[in-house]
Amino acid sequence: MNLIDSGHSLYVYNRTASKASPAAAKGAVVCESVASLAKQCNIVFTIVSDDAALKNICIGENGLLHHLQTDSVHVSLSTILPQTALDLASLHEQRGQHYLASPVFGRPEAAVAKKLNFTISGNEKIRKQVEPLLREAGGMHVWHFGNDITAANTVKLCGNFLIASALEAIGESIQLAKKSRVDAQQMWDMFSQTLFAAPVYVNYSKIILQEKFEPAAFTMKLGLKDIDLVLQQAASAQQSMPLASLLQKNMQQIISEGNEDIDWSAVSSATLK
Amino acid sequence: MNLIDSGHSLYVYNRTASKASPAAAKGAVVCESVASLAKQCNIVFTIVSDDAALKNICIGENGLLHHLQTDSVHVSLSTILPQTALDLASLHEQRGQHYLASPVFGRPEAAVAKKLNFTISGNEKIRKQVEPLLREAGGMHVWHFGNDITAANTVKLCGNFLIASALEAIGESIQLAKKSRVDAQQMWDMFSQTLFAAPVYVNYSKIILQEKFEPAAFTMKLGLKDIDLVLQQAASAQQSMPLASLLQKNMQQIISEGNEDIDWSAVSSATLK
Repeated sequence: MNLIDSGHSLYVYNRTASKASPAAAKGAVVCESVASLAKQCNIVFTIVSDDAALKNICIGENGLLHHLQTDSVHVSLSTILPQTALDLASLHEQRGQHYLASPVFGRPEAAVAKKLNFTISGNEKIRKQVEPLLREAGGMHVWHFGNDITAANTVKLCGNFLIASALEAIGESIQLAKKSRVDAQQMWDMFSQTLFAAPVYVNYSKIILQEKFEPAAFTMKLGLKDIDLVLQQAASAQQSMPLASLLQKNMQQIISEGNEDIDWSAVSSATLK
Repeated sequence: MNLIDSGHSLYVYNRTASKASPAAAKGAVVCESVASLAKQCNIVFTIVSDDAALKNICIGENGLLHHLQTDSVHVSLSTILPQTALDLASLHEQRGQHYLASPVFGRPEAAVAKKLNFTISGNEKIRKQVEPLLREAGGMHVWHFGNDITAANTVKLCGNFLIASALEAIGESIQLAKKSRVDAQQMWDMFSQTLFAAPVYVNYSKIILQEKFEPAAFTMKLGLKDIDLVLQQAASAQQSMPLASLLQKNMQQIISEGNEDIDWSAVSSATLK
């Protein structure tokens, strides 16, 4: 939407056609396939929920790789494994195309308010070319992490791990306060204005205090997907991450109880019953 | 020091007499015992490292309880169990004295800069009487948590638990970034200005990035003491706190390896070797 407002011609595709309607109403051209979109665009942004979905869009006779023109750019906004970024970058390169990793921090309302934080890594010249578009798309900041294509995805995994860790800590603290007959709202009024006066704590402490876990802004299922990626990356780096393992265990338990669609901020509820 | 600057007569006592020298140089009267100090003061602030030390100051023939005059106030700044606060408040009350819980957030440099955050709970009239002194002593804010004497200590335990949780998360994220060949400094430049733009993350990410764990501003031994209190409080509230248990385990391991005097921000190093 922001790109259209900035005067760009926008072509869109979604498996679920109705999801493209709001963009279409603003003048975007709705494409019937990834292939038809790829043929018409010199820069393609993709954002999907996991590594398999992204590979599915890229590879095969209907994929981006087959249909993008030479020198076109694929800007991948999804949270995926660094290794997947490396593999896709290599495949694009073989076809004379470019691949950039640009995972993004910010919920939908941050996109509307143009307060997104984009991370970006890959070929410097292509990064410089794409940066203005990311700003027009809603990026308050574009954070560059160099030419190694894997860097931005590692940073994104670290960021989501840090957020999930904060969610667990906030949840345990609220429960301890409540069970000790302390006004947890009053306690978080203080923390939110002092030691923890940061967006993650300010926003999520409100949600957790009110237990407003539905509708989810980011589901437990997607949260677990990200923590699984964090631990896969840690394993490939031969590092133990006990806090990430704890988060994984809690999320698995909540999902096993049928709550995969509640907000991931409920992560600490696994052990607080 | 701030109290002297504000024009108050200050009497001081420390087991290690030399520690009172800086205050004495500014005009404080150094007392030879808790008892002699108690006889001369109508408001006494105590700050010691654990519950046992505080009880030791209060109870017995040389203690505050025996020597404070009627209607005097004992303001306890230490991080202790809520139950200990309840017990001491009751003992003071039996002698016609007052006890307030006022654990404090802020390192020594924050005291100098008058940027401390005091929490406070206990009798409202006495709280109002003491609040101006806490501001003069360096309190940027004084956060009131009502008449229940235990509340402020619970809030302090929650706060220290939240800080230690952040330390573990920061440490694991930095290690994952480094082992994935990402510039962890650059990553924290971003997080410190965006999602985690809060004092705890800004200050501690610098220390952990540089691995400046000595000299300690707050030792691992004291960190473990606090997490032990958090888990004691959780047990008495019949609550499980898996993240607190993880922190306890890591701190115990670091201390068992002879590193009890390094800064508690090294907590994640237990599992990162």
